[in-house]
Amino acid sequence: MGKKLTTRAEDYSKWYNELVVKADLAENSAVRGCMVIKPYGYAIWEKMQAELDRMFKETGHQNAYFPLFVPKNLFEAEEKNAEGFAKECAVVTHYRLKNNPDDPGKLVVDPEAKLEEELVVRPTSEAIIWNTYKNWVQSYRDLPLLINQWANVVRWEMRTRLFLRTAEFLWQEGHTAHATKQEALDEAMQMNDIYATFAEDFMAIPVIKGSKTENERFAGAEETYCIEALMQDGKALQAGTSHFLGQNFAKAFDVKFASKEGNLEHVWATSWGVSTRLMGALIMTHSDDNGLVLPPNLAPVQVVIVPIYKGDDQLEQISEVANQLAADLRAKGISVKYDDRDTQKPGWKFAQYELQGVPVRLAIGPKDLEKGTVELARRDTLTKEFVERDKVVEKVDALMTEMQQSLFNKARDYRDSHITSVDSFDEFKKVLKEKNGFISAHWDGTSETENKIKDLTKATIRCIPFNQEQESGSCVLTGKPSSQRVLFAKAY
Amino acid sequence: MGKKLTTRAEDYSKWYNELVVKADLAENSAVRGCMVIKPYGYAIWEKMQAELDRMFKETGHQNAYFPLFVPKNLFEAEEKNAEGFAKECAVVTHYRLKNNPDDPGKLVVDPEAKLEEELVVRPTSEAIIWNTYKNWVQSYRDLPLLINQWANVVRWEMRTRLFLRTAEFLWQEGHTAHATKQEALDEAMQMNDIYATFAEDFMAIPVIKGSKTENERFAGAEETYCIEALMQDGKALQAGTSHFLGQNFAKAFDVKFASKEGNLEHVWATSWGVSTRLMGALIMTHSDDNGLVLPPNLAPVQVVIVPIYKGDDQLEQISEVANQLAADLRAKGISVKYDDRDTQKPGWKFAQYELQGVPVRLAIGPKDLEKGTVELARRDTLTKEFVERDKVVEKVDALMTEMQQSLFNKARDYRDSHITSVDSFDEFKKVLKEKNGFISAHWDGTSETENKIKDLTKATIRCIPFNQEQESGSCVLTGKPSSQRVLFAKAY
Repeated sequence: MGKKLTTRAEDYSKWYNELVVKADLAENSAVRGCMVIKPYGYAIWEKMQAELDRMFKETGHQNAYFPLFVPKNLFEAEEKNAEGFAKECAVVTHYRLKNNPDDPGKLVVDPEAKLEEELVVRPTSEAIIWNTYKNWVQSYRDLPLLINQWANVVRWEMRTRLFLRTAEFLWQEGHTAHATKQEALDEAMQMNDIYATFAEDFMAIPVIKGSKTENERFAGAEETYCIEALMQDGKALQAGTSHFLGQNFAKAFDVKFASKEGNLEHVWATSWGVSTRLMGALIMTHSDDNGLVLPPNLAPVQVVIVPIYKGDDQLEQISEVANQLAADLRAKGISVKYDDRDTQKPGWKFAQYELQGVPVRLAIGPKDLEKGTVELARRDTLTKEFVERDKVVEKVDALMTEMQQSLFNKARDYRDSHITSVDSFDEFKKVLKEKNGFISAHWDGTSETENKIKDLTKATIRCIPFNQEQESGSCVLTGKPSSQRVLFAKAY
Repeated sequence: MGKKLTTRAEDYSKWYNELVVKADLAENSAVRGCMVIKPYGYAIWEKMQAELDRMFKETGHQNAYFPLFVPKNLFEAEEKNAEGFAKECAVVTHYRLKNNPDDPGKLVVDPEAKLEEELVVRPTSEAIIWNTYKNWVQSYRDLPLLINQWANVVRWEMRTRLFLRTAEFLWQEGHTAHATKQEALDEAMQMNDIYATFAEDFMAIPVIKGSKTENERFAGAEETYCIEALMQDGKALQAGTSHFLGQNFAKAFDVKFASKEGNLEHVWATSWGVSTRLMGALIMTHSDDNGLVLPPNLAPVQVVIVPIYKGDDQLEQISEVANQLAADLRAKGISVKYDDRDTQKPGWKFAQYELQGVPVRLAIGPKDLEKGTVELARRDTLTKEFVERDKVVEKVDALMTEMQQSLFNKARDYRDSHITSVDSFDEFKKVLKEKNGFISAHWDGTSETENKIKDLTKATIRCIPFNQEQESGSCVLTGKPSSQRVLFAKAY
């Protein structure tokens, strides 16, 4: 446990780093930029995985597994993709170590075991997958190919932060092949919608759906859709992306199919992914100065019961009540931990479960036994109340839904109150400085202007929102005509 | 579909390779020795994962995730482990590619992006994990640490075969830390028992539990327990291993804890794993010359329904029956596919599902409609019968259990009839040549003799079985005294 967390007001970034470690979510490892995801953090990730996997399968996708390595000659086949990732990739050049003749007990790379073709550790799998699809697709009957992979990928980032930006991270990457452009566009949109539903309904994180500008697009994509969330410090976080890849990869890897009409055509592609970065979004959306706050859907333990007792007799009586409560709650599908460890005091346990974001804490002491009550504490509101014992199950069951919704509402209200429309660049800078959040502004549509605004303010265009009316205006920087507002923000 | 499979009698090895590809389980990739696990194969692996994961969690283990890379200096810390894996590991030496100045559009390794410390792609994770545990363990209160990881690992094997031996493979690796030697020994034994239960009850693969000789032990282990299965060609396959690591890693990484008595002691360790190799065991235990045979527990589709029809009217009538049957079967928890594709003929579908090992095939034609029957085909026995429509669900439900058991019994009978006790080396060689399988023989306990037998016959000691009476005798090669028989076999 140790000392209290740095508060968000004191230093948001430090608060985040401390929380991730103290709540037992993840920590840095001996490998530069790579993290260890600790059991508690991994259990939350598993819940995300299970729900996403279910959603993917319900929409007809199947899982498969492709190699970790991409031979250099395949990696470079789709030029823009290669260019986008070449500067930050881990390269395997040798396949053996040998004893160091100068330093017994130590090992050195064996120069005789040099690979003829270097292998890139996948930063993303389009290249290796499209090289495989070449053999899987001959006829329109083989389409669509709807495949997803759960995997680790490596991007040699220079500045890393736990969950938000790590050299190795875990993700899923969907890779689909279609007979028509429209089908591929629809698929890319469908998957972006699935990410939005997942973020909002399961993670209680409100998101804005939109498309990326050319600057911010995935390397090799013709269109990138995204969901953008807003963190409590007013910075945006891209929580998921879905790409329409056109025929770029099909052409680079020569993937053609015979159409119903008998023509040989290149297939159309999408790819889409979310990663352990979502853990960062989760933490920064809901948590507070006391630690992690988890929506019930994502909590590995939804309810913890702590006995408050002196002596074994009291413990025995309390345990009887607690075990019955636990059984009744579990029968409702609620996950419960009864923590009767005698190695830690109740106060220590309270602080620990608060730090780890367990949604509901029940405490039972001798007075509760007398009165037939239980003390119920909500993690999200930090409120406590006494509940009659025979009302506890019903109350907790209702709270699971209520807390999930209430966390979403709170985050949505914050987000909505941090979307500011501005019509001048002075206003733009003022809002960024004083309030932060999303700035809705007109933009002339050029990368040049986008880059200039970034240089001047560090804000980038997070997306061109889908659900927004066309509105003519003039670019906030250049004054040139614009047909709709876009969302700017500083971003993670 | 293409032409028929090579038969097992013709060429067992070729049969296996063809089956893996034709049944859509896996295929070779563009990366030397690395496979692509195709959706159908991956769906089977997911079923194994889910069941194992459940068993691990029920016994108190939690999942976590550790880095893909092991810095060379950590890799070499436990000497025997390093020595065991150094000769076959992929090494990352650089973190960037750059444009090839001599060949525009091509990339080369950027010599300026050389890592100071090379990174080994994990062949197994003891080193990186024990380096982490150092910070997780201070007191006896922190023990036991019961952690599992689902991950990919890389071992640069020179001769690879799909599932059986691949450069990259998927596995789970458990890594536990304990306060006492006995606890660690018990854990290692418990996990080996879990593997045995999983193999027998879930995969219908009979296994023999035992311990490895020093020669065959995991590099860095003091004791390796294993489960050994027998394939249909009489070769053994090690299906899972569980290691007692003593204090070797704790000492190499200085992992100590304060005991209840206040002493500072090194912790005791285990590690244990099974991999996608189990897919190879599954295939070679049950399958036949018509293709894959799957125990119902592992079948992604347990029942397929194929309509036999001419014209849309007939199809409509058949579909009504089929959809009702499918719904009733699903209500029993049975997975069903109704294949009414009009792009393929029934005969093609029959062959395809046979090749892919779907346990039960139901066919419904116009005559069945008249008679109120369904044709039911069992994949394991290749038998067919007509079943009254209102008996189908009950019948299929019972078959799921019956086929699971019957596949196990068949494999066990084969295995049991291929354990031969021999008392002379001539007999040993004769059995190996004429019958193959496990050979139960006395051995003098030396690595020297074990190696000699291997050189002479290619047979190795698969295990020293646990459930076996002590029996004095003399070594089959040297005639020296021996106190128990061990199991020899040629192995995958």
